[in-house]
Amino acid sequence: MASSVTRSDVARFPNMTIYDFPTGPYPTRVRIALAEKSLLSHAEFVFVDLYKGDHKRPEFISTKNYSGTLPVLELGDGTCIAECTAITEYLDALDGVPTLTGRTPLEKGVIHMMSKRAELELLDPISVYFHHATPGLGPEVELYQNREWGIRQRDKALRGMRYFDGVLESQPFVAGDAFSMADITVIGGLIFASIVKLPVPEECAALISWYERMRARPSVKSQPAFA
Amino acid sequence: MASSVTRSDVARFPNMTIYDFPTGPYPTRVRIALAEKSLLSHAEFVFVDLYKGDHKRPEFISTKNYSGTLPVLELGDGTCIAECTAITEYLDALDGVPTLTGRTPLEKGVIHMMSKRAELELLDPISVYFHHATPGLGPEVELYQNREWGIRQRDKALRGMRYFDGVLESQPFVAGDAFSMADITVIGGLIFASIVKLPVPEECAALISWYERMRARPSVKSQPAFA
Repeated sequence: MASSVTRSDVARFPNMTIYDFPTGPYPTRVRIALAEKSLLSHAEFVFVDLYKGDHKRPEFISTKNYSGTLPVLELGDGTCIAECTAITEYLDALDGVPTLTGRTPLEKGVIHMMSKRAELELLDPISVYFHHATPGLGPEVELYQNREWGIRQRDKALRGMRYFDGVLESQPFVAGDAFSMADITVIGGLIFASIVKLPVPEECAALISWYERMRARPSVKSQPAFA
Repeated sequence: MASSVTRSDVARFPNMTIYDFPTGPYPTRVRIALAEKSLLSHAEFVFVDLYKGDHKRPEFISTKNYSGTLPVLELGDGTCIAECTAITEYLDALDGVPTLTGRTPLEKGVIHMMSKRAELELLDPISVYFHHATPGLGPEVELYQNREWGIRQRDKALRGMRYFDGVLESQPFVAGDAFSMADITVIGGLIFASIVKLPVPEECAALISWYERMRARPSVKSQPAFA
């Protein structure tokens, strides 16, 4: 692994362990970020079985991620970084050339806004729908469901698709003129939409066309979520 | 306004309009960030009356923030940046000396993780409790409530307080050795906890002691939320 990496690269780019569920929408966000940053060879993936609830076990919660979610990045000294945005910030800063999270104040602000908006209005609502108004990860894991809340979140996500369609009618990427973390978050949302069989409305032509372009990117099309 | 600011500063730091509710937990996060960065004199605050639902009106949603929340930062050219983390990233990058969002990859990763965790496990759940299981902003604004969900979120926030108490038993600030955006987010959570009368459990001595130190900081104690 990492056979073409020079000694100085090894010092610069630490070995990383990623607690992962390869086809998961959130883990795929970090997998795309790793691929965009050419860091895949530095990452070792450890499979965590969501359908067995391995991410909710006390040992995982106390040592890896209090919130009991994937993905988590673990560094050699045991430091764990959870949350996709935080992991992406870390990865993007490693080489000193941020391409995903912005260079100028304005880029940083807009990318973070649009990525958070993609979470709030698309990805997270679909996740809540999945866990609360569908069988989700199964009865052993979904110990509490609030179906009414889940259905409302599904409808919120559909409105979110129309919002992002409008954004993409006037610009090529979610946060403006360049690919960024915000695109990755919307990709995560549409991966989850596919899992829960919530298709993008046909009239959202700009969103559909953008998604086709995204899926043609090497960092995206190589993902297990699209296998 | 900004009478002590030199011409080069004026070029460097744009005038900013903040759509604001001065005592709100989320707006206070940005107010603290502005104060920490000595940027208050560059900001003009526009009052948006949450209790009249002015943040949910179509005009606000279509021109300021699709998500219909405060605060929003508007730049001179009309660009709007919503979401506290995004606004803080913007503000912190303006002077080229990030003090709130981290300098190294590790600092960035840990600060973003802890700030997001403070949202997920403390601030946002209290907000959901407020809007869904209390009268919230009143019947004219709270058009849908899911009380059961709200109560669960209150309980989640109480667990979150215990988690952050544990964190602060072993380090002076939420993300480690220095004040950061993550502290600001927990402060927002405890402001909201006070509004909904959800006191920090007495046994959370480290969290209580940290909060006393935070409220002694000039950027924090000067906030309308503490008036």
